[in-house]
Amino acid sequence: MTILHEDRLFPASAETRSIARRLYDSIAGLPIISPHGHTQARWFAENEPFPDPAKLFIQPDHYVYRMLYSQGVSLEDLGVGQETIPDSRKVWRIFAEHYYLFRATPTRMWLDYAFQELFGLSHRLSARTADHYYDVISEKLSTPEFRPRALYERFNLEVLATTDSPLDSLSWHEAVRDSGWKARILPTFRPDSVVDAGYANFHQNLVTLGEVTGEDTSSWTGYLNALRKSRQRFKQLGCTATDHGHPTAQTADLSPAEASALYARVFSGNADDAAHELFRAQMLTEMARMSVEDGLVMQIHPGSSRNHNRLVYERFGRDTGADIPTPTNYVHALKPMLDRFGNEPGLSIILFTLDESTYSRELAPLAGHYPCLKLGPPWWFHDSPEGMMRFRQLVTETAGFYNTVGFNDDTRAFLSIPARHDVARRIDAAYLAGLVADHRLDEDEAFEVARELTSELVRRAYRL
Amino acid sequence: MTILHEDRLFPASAETRSIARRLYDSIAGLPIISPHGHTQARWFAENEPFPDPAKLFIQPDHYVYRMLYSQGVSLEDLGVGQETIPDSRKVWRIFAEHYYLFRATPTRMWLDYAFQELFGLSHRLSARTADHYYDVISEKLSTPEFRPRALYERFNLEVLATTDSPLDSLSWHEAVRDSGWKARILPTFRPDSVVDAGYANFHQNLVTLGEVTGEDTSSWTGYLNALRKSRQRFKQLGCTATDHGHPTAQTADLSPAEASALYARVFSGNADDAAHELFRAQMLTEMARMSVEDGLVMQIHPGSSRNHNRLVYERFGRDTGADIPTPTNYVHALKPMLDRFGNEPGLSIILFTLDESTYSRELAPLAGHYPCLKLGPPWWFHDSPEGMMRFRQLVTETAGFYNTVGFNDDTRAFLSIPARHDVARRIDAAYLAGLVADHRLDEDEAFEVARELTSELVRRAYRL
Amino acid sequence: MTILHEDRLFPASAETRSIARRLYDSIAGLPIISPHGHTQARWFAENEPFPDPAKLFIQPDHYVYRMLYSQGVSLEDLGVGQETIPDSRKVWRIFAEHYYLFRATPTRMWLDYAFQELFGLSHRLSARTADHYYDVISEKLSTPEFRPRALYERFNLEVLATTDSPLDSLSWHEAVRDSGWKARILPTFRPDSVVDAGYANFHQNLVTLGEVTGEDTSSWTGYLNALRKSRQRFKQLGCTATDHGHPTAQTADLSPAEASALYARVFSGNADDAAHELFRAQMLTEMARMSVEDGLVMQIHPGSSRNHNRLVYERFGRDTGADIPTPTNYVHALKPMLDRFGNEPGLSIILFTLDESTYSRELAPLAGHYPCLKLGPPWWFHDSPEGMMRFRQLVTETAGFYNTVGFNDDTRAFLSIPARHDVARRIDAAYLAGLVADHRLDEDEAFEVARELTSELVRRAYRL
Repeated sequence: MTILHEDRLFPASAETRSIARRLYDSIAGLPIISPHGHTQARWFAENEPFPDPAKLFIQPDHYVYRMLYSQGVSLEDLGVGQETIPDSRKVWRIFAEHYYLFRATPTRMWLDYAFQELFGLSHRLSARTADHYYDVISEKLSTPEFRPRALYERFNLEVLATTDSPLDSLSWHEAVRDSGWKARILPTFRPDSVVDAGYANFHQNLVTLGEVTGEDTSSWTGYLNALRKSRQRFKQLGCTATDHGHPTAQTADLSPAEASALYARVFSGNADDAAHELFRAQMLTEMARMSVEDGLVMQIHPGSSRNHNRLVYERFGRDTGADIPTPTNYVHALKPMLDRFGNEPGLSIILFTLDESTYSRELAPLAGHYPCLKLGPPWWFHDSPEGMMRFRQLVTETAGFYNTVGFNDDTRAFLSIPARHDVARRIDAAYLAGLVADHRLDEDEAFEVARELTSELVRRAYRL
Repeated sequence: MTILHEDRLFPASAETRSIARRLYDSIAGLPIISPHGHTQARWFAENEPFPDPAKLFIQPDHYVYRMLYSQGVSLEDLGVGQETIPDSRKVWRIFAEHYYLFRATPTRMWLDYAFQELFGLSHRLSARTADHYYDVISEKLSTPEFRPRALYERFNLEVLATTDSPLDSLSWHEAVRDSGWKARILPTFRPDSVVDAGYANFHQNLVTLGEVTGEDTSSWTGYLNALRKSRQRFKQLGCTATDHGHPTAQTADLSPAEASALYARVFSGNADDAAHELFRAQMLTEMARMSVEDGLVMQIHPGSSRNHNRLVYERFGRDTGADIPTPTNYVHALKPMLDRFGNEPGLSIILFTLDESTYSRELAPLAGHYPCLKLGPPWWFHDSPEGMMRFRQLVTETAGFYNTVGFNDDTRAFLSIPARHDVARRIDAAYLAGLVADHRLDEDEAFEVARELTSELVRRAYRL
Repeated sequence: MTILHEDRLFPASAETRSIARRLYDSIAGLPIISPHGHTQARWFAENEPFPDPAKLFIQPDHYVYRMLYSQGVSLEDLGVGQETIPDSRKVWRIFAEHYYLFRATPTRMWLDYAFQELFGLSHRLSARTADHYYDVISEKLSTPEFRPRALYERFNLEVLATTDSPLDSLSWHEAVRDSGWKARILPTFRPDSVVDAGYANFHQNLVTLGEVTGEDTSSWTGYLNALRKSRQRFKQLGCTATDHGHPTAQTADLSPAEASALYARVFSGNADDAAHELFRAQMLTEMARMSVEDGLVMQIHPGSSRNHNRLVYERFGRDTGADIPTPTNYVHALKPMLDRFGNEPGLSIILFTLDESTYSRELAPLAGHYPCLKLGPPWWFHDSPEGMMRFRQLVTETAGFYNTVGFNDDTRAFLSIPARHDVARRIDAAYLAGLVADHRLDEDEAFEVARELTSELVRRAYRL
């Protein structure tokens, strides 16, 4: 008895399925490279057991509780935003009773994978099996095999990148490095909180940035120096990439005098929304300039309307499942930066989108021309079987495979990492099998491409 | 000899097809629930025979004559906009000669279904068979079995909702209710003509609304009271839903004073286009407020540029096949209303779109979070096999099945209702069969979901 | 040993594949009609041998070198923009080493077809086979069978349209006509350089236009007369169509006085970007007016941001692979022109797009209603197997087959023409086979439609 079928996600027609199986078998055992995600270095520094099932699987996972909330389950009843969960088993039961809501969603597939492959469970989660699940998971979590480091090794991770603020001391990364444990857990430089003036506490963040770097961030020059120093600090701990989560992909290329004046307004707190947008735009170009200097790869993740649900934001804070994608333009938005640095050798920028209409219209043509641009994998809501298949179908004919960068799991759910990479490998195998079956690609080439998509492209793109 | 194949719309691969067949068989016989459409209560009150073939199938169906018009057939020759058709057989022959134009369109599939299943025809419609069709259909239409009530029963309808103006007396609905005939034909509250100041005769409509409700619609308060009373009148005849066909999805949340001042301008006829748009936006929020009070489900159908062909509009009037979809934004547009009522228990809003790029980008993420939002089925041009399949593929992974609401036939062509529901059931079966074949969903779950998509979701969503 | 499989691009499932094969066999031998492309009449007038492999396949093909450039190959090393290529074999070797970049792209399929079917090559191009390819191709190009006229006949071309400026003398077209060679090589009237004030040398172009037509182009009336005369000159050489490559689809319908005043500003060189856009918009309407008069079919190709890469444009000039699609609106943009001429008998306008989100949202509904509108085939980046399949899936249910116009190869790569038409025929066969297998279309109808898509629709649409 299993929850998951061994041929899941492979095409139904017999010949294509058998090609997909062979392709998958050739990559299933490769190490996992996770160049972009939201796990925490602290887990691996401390190596404490993960908490109980509800606190592990429900409370922190906005994929899970946004669906439950959409069907009338209250966030309070799920323990969202609470320090401790008084009755964890009760939360788990609510989740189990509503597990049918996740039918045909990637969340279901990721969870089932963890339940079966990590916890050895063999019957579908439901109200009936809720307590059994709770007991089995709780028990296993208390064993040494389920400590963070043991799981890292069991998952066959080669690299695991976290996402970190320039204000972070990175002390947990240092602790991992100093512990002597052989693992590659790298920070990623995510400066949103000090370049996006729409952020809560923005001014204070700039002051703090000045303090930790010893620069005078009240001036444009001092601010840029502070960012340069921060990037160096990250690089020293193995960081190879930056990440930028802006509302839009807008860039700008102001003169130094204009940029300096704009910074003064933003720093003073007297800037309006348009100035904030222009400042973010200019900062993408500044980040590109620094990347030309120091070689860090840029990731741009635009197009999310954050905290869309006002009430939920006020009660539960950021990142509570109410971020909604918006129409996103790249072709005009990126032009100022590309006019400045688009042909710069050594610059590498990875673009993501939540607006699938841009795949074939803007992103593939841009990446299929500019040497500095590559396409990140399908992101967030599109990190799903259909989403991945659409990405390949919409992008490959124009940008090819070699302007893409492999898979990102982008997760804060450490236990879901193998499941997510497994889905990506299966879908890549399925897509390639379709090309082989239709005689659009020779089978020997498909095996080579499968390996590229799994390992080589990500290593090269992220300079690992 | 048949026109339609019994396996139509099922996937070609043998294993998947057999799953689809089993799923379809489990739902094919369920009653039809039609919560949104444009049939007329009068037909069922009077129970007179339907008119001749041309007047039944061609003259009123803009799906049919827009295609003919696009290929150079004149609307005059089809009797569009004419009270009587002088030579109905001649119109039918023109249609039959051009029937090849509908190849691979849903119109063809709906018509073939009616021809075969209702009229027992077994050879494809063409110039050669035109007269035979005309004779057979004419004859059958004159028999008791083809009267509206007999067909309602033959179609196994459980509920049939019409769409009605607040200015409508609903006397035909009353007549059906008072007739003692056991059928459930419900009005739907569609206030466009009294909330959209771009409507012809808008001011007169407001005056009439005041008269029929006994309220002073020259004031904002009187106007709102008139709408409240109208909704109550609809509810008393079984109405469970409202419907709003706005050009955009824009909402607003003005203060009472601002709203009152805006209403004064709109009522006076001195408002410009921007004020009309703001007023429509405010009225969606007012309708949401009333729905919180009285429990009517809201349907929002935005994004059509109505009467796009100026000449055709001037000659033939509204709804003559020249409504063209436009890019539609939801994420910013709905925010004012959602900020006000988005987390209100009991509020239920069903969103439709003509802009498929919003399925995965905006609608599924919104419906997958907000408890008040559900997604209506693919609408109008997208009420088609490919359109339905895209809807499921683009929506399910983020919003799941349970934030959707089953099928709407949305038709004024009463005889096409079984055909349209049959297509929806077949495509749902085909989609679910694909998930089962790819091992993304277990077969027992697929049977349960098939029944939900056909019956349970629509009953719950429309509170039937 | 072959490079290409005979069943390429046909669906994998056995039954559907066999239907596709039968459909393809019925159209594979039909003559090629190429109503829109960028070959040069001069080639056929002079009938000189084509140059060496690098100058033939790499230097002029922006599909090829944009991909190479995106992966770090310098344009200089490929000979782009150079009059002569010093070491053609070296360029060829660079290309061969990077040929894997084109995996699963249409470029790969087109090139493989030419390599196999024209040059008899039977092993995949790679670094290993580069010299062999170079030698075989070079040798064949020097033979009489590879002269332009011989290839035209071998390709079974029935019509080949070029694209030409009103400033072109068309002397090469005259030379072909006067040569006595029986072939149909027709000019297409492409007035961008004299209607788009954003063009380099726009003012000088207008002056030249006045000189060659004997009209005073400093006045609006003289300018319009000059265009009318130019169109007549094209018509006399067999031209049946115009082509308009505007940044947007915007049209306008100014009064004669307004148009005249706008022209004066544009002519003087004092107009800003908004005036340029309005002038282009007005000129589409003027072109429609002239088409009503003279019967030339209009083609509108909007939505490309030309020369996006500033540095590459400055160094290498126009058309160097850095044109990027932009979001494009049709429904509002075309309305002024459609309000004026949309129901005009005899007017025929073929719409193209680079924004696939408009297929189902705007283009199919417009073409499925307006008698003057037809849909051009998938263009440029979407001239690909997946792109063609999406076009049919997104368009057919609303617009049918008969509001489309067959295939355009749109190429400056003469040797790729048979390959491109072959891909289109295979995908049409695959799409139709899917409809037959799903019982959405009867097989006899599919054969008829296949022939329409290949030959009849294009002949009728382009009035050939």
